[in-house]
Amino acid sequence: MITFNIPRPDDGIRTSLINKIDNLAKPKGSLGRLEELALQIGWIQQTLSPSLDCPTNIIFAADHGIADEGVSLSPKEVTRQVVFNFLNGGAGVCFLARQHGFQLKIVDAGVDFDFPEIPGLIAHKIRKGTRNFLHEAAMTEAEMNEALRYGAEMVSQCQHEGCNIVSFGEMGIGNTSASSMWMTLLTRIPLEDCVGAGSGLDRRGVQHKYEILKQALKNYSGDGTPSDVIRYFGGFEMVMAVGGMLRAAELGMIILVDGFIMTNCVLAASRLYPNVLDYCIFGHCGDEAGHRRVLDFLGARPLLDLGLRLGEGSGAVCAYPIVDSAVRMLNEMHTFEQEAITKYF
Amino acid sequence: MITFNIPRPDDGIRTSLINKIDNLAKPKGSLGRLEELALQIGWIQQTLSPSLDCPTNIIFAADHGIADEGVSLSPKEVTRQVVFNFLNGGAGVCFLARQHGFQLKIVDAGVDFDFPEIPGLIAHKIRKGTRNFLHEAAMTEAEMNEALRYGAEMVSQCQHEGCNIVSFGEMGIGNTSASSMWMTLLTRIPLEDCVGAGSGLDRRGVQHKYEILKQALKNYSGDGTPSDVIRYFGGFEMVMAVGGMLRAAELGMIILVDGFIMTNCVLAASRLYPNVLDYCIFGHCGDEAGHRRVLDFLGARPLLDLGLRLGEGSGAVCAYPIVDSAVRMLNEMHTFEQEAITKYF
Repeated sequence: MITFNIPRPDDGIRTSLINKIDNLAKPKGSLGRLEELALQIGWIQQTLSPSLDCPTNIIFAADHGIADEGVSLSPKEVTRQVVFNFLNGGAGVCFLARQHGFQLKIVDAGVDFDFPEIPGLIAHKIRKGTRNFLHEAAMTEAEMNEALRYGAEMVSQCQHEGCNIVSFGEMGIGNTSASSMWMTLLTRIPLEDCVGAGSGLDRRGVQHKYEILKQALKNYSGDGTPSDVIRYFGGFEMVMAVGGMLRAAELGMIILVDGFIMTNCVLAASRLYPNVLDYCIFGHCGDEAGHRRVLDFLGARPLLDLGLRLGEGSGAVCAYPIVDSAVRMLNEMHTFEQEAITKYF
Repeated sequence: MITFNIPRPDDGIRTSLINKIDNLAKPKGSLGRLEELALQIGWIQQTLSPSLDCPTNIIFAADHGIADEGVSLSPKEVTRQVVFNFLNGGAGVCFLARQHGFQLKIVDAGVDFDFPEIPGLIAHKIRKGTRNFLHEAAMTEAEMNEALRYGAEMVSQCQHEGCNIVSFGEMGIGNTSASSMWMTLLTRIPLEDCVGAGSGLDRRGVQHKYEILKQALKNYSGDGTPSDVIRYFGGFEMVMAVGGMLRAAELGMIILVDGFIMTNCVLAASRLYPNVLDYCIFGHCGDEAGHRRVLDFLGARPLLDLGLRLGEGSGAVCAYPIVDSAVRMLNEMHTFEQEAITKYF
């Protein structure tokens, strides 16, 4: 399995950062979360004057064998249909990316469809969808390793292009089911608290999904280690995101975290390399049941709470301007001394 | 007293707006608050393709007689010092305005200082600070009327310049005290739940502030009507904001609401003309004690909760990209039909 080397950022710079923030001409602490973000970003980048360069949202798309069990309101074909909508610029994350100057990268990680060669679609199909984890492991070890490796390679390439802040999105009918399995097995939170409506199941649909996943849990005979759980239940898009997150942390990049599925990818990544969390900024708390619980488990306080549950990286990209504000605060605000303002604390 | 004519937006368009939103290629409701905002904005602007033009943040600055009672951590001179920082582009709201393309207008509504003529400072001093409401009315009726009138005039001018979305900010040492008085008298929420730390009072400082305001409440012998409460305790910057909000609603503009003080200005405005609330989008819930309570009283659900308590319009401007996202969603997302995506609800 591919390995990563993720050190904690050096704490030496924290005092200088705090001094700089406290000398900006405002009541101490009055910019709240912006001040905390500025501290984290300066710490990650090891500078008092951080910058955000070439923000990029990488979307991995793939299908899931478990979708055959009727665990999603949406039919499998929606995965590929939405991939086309990404390419056409008409999906939810597209207008957000345009608004905030994000580059979008669309990766076919394992969609169950033979795409023609299309400009803008990065082809790296591991397999045409995972196997059905109700009955067998979703992927082989070799498939998992290749997904991790390629996710990491994508991020290296982004960094090479000048990017230092990256978010991840996904498209894959069935992937809230896969995420719920990771969540329950990696946190020990009961399965029922990890299962939600996905793209819009009603009560009865959620109950059916829960029954299927409960059976899958019963059938699972792996060793319960993080890497086995990731492999057995994961989607290719999710594993690629895990690889991407780990590489981003290794390279000292900021990881902007999206919704339920990507939060579970951070969970998985952090079970392999806990220091990855130092590099994460959580964009939003989504409406999928279980999201708040897994955020709490990670000690994460997301920036937004707007009831989004679209995936695609939309919640991460939507939160970007707040991250940008924190950096601008640090670089652009004047100090008490500069403005000869009576320091009132 | 200046009067306003504020109709409710016509409900006829709501069904078409909801249809448009529900036909965008995403699980129904999956863009959460963005969908609600899109509906409100389309309703205010009476169109299925709304736009946000020339966003403007008007900052009114003024001093308060009550500041003589030691109710603020900051000395009065900070009001004028921060006005200079606005003009120099170094204050908290300045980097946010640059980030989000806001025009800033800085109005001297009643600062206790003789400014020289300075480019960028709009001079409309009602008086060099209000009177001390512990002992007498903060302003005369004529002063209140002129503040209302000029606030309205400022907004008319913004609209004339092409603006259709406006936020209001303030600078005025002592203005959380004035706001707490408005809040308790206009909502009947007990004074103690309306008083907070302002720019950073400790427990003892908050207690002193509370005692002073309790005495002011006891001394008040007015008739308790909204206009009397506004006049007796208001700051010139606050009354100008009320006038500005009422004119903005009258003109069908969107009002983006900032923190504790501006929320109390909306409260005051809505006690005069309840329909003003239809035009308000609440930007954030600040850290000042009482803000959540007054938001709840108004039935308002703010977009952000980032622990900001700076004023200046900062929380409103910070929330702007979310409003912009809602408009872009409506204008830029493709529909199920356009993309031949299986509609999954």
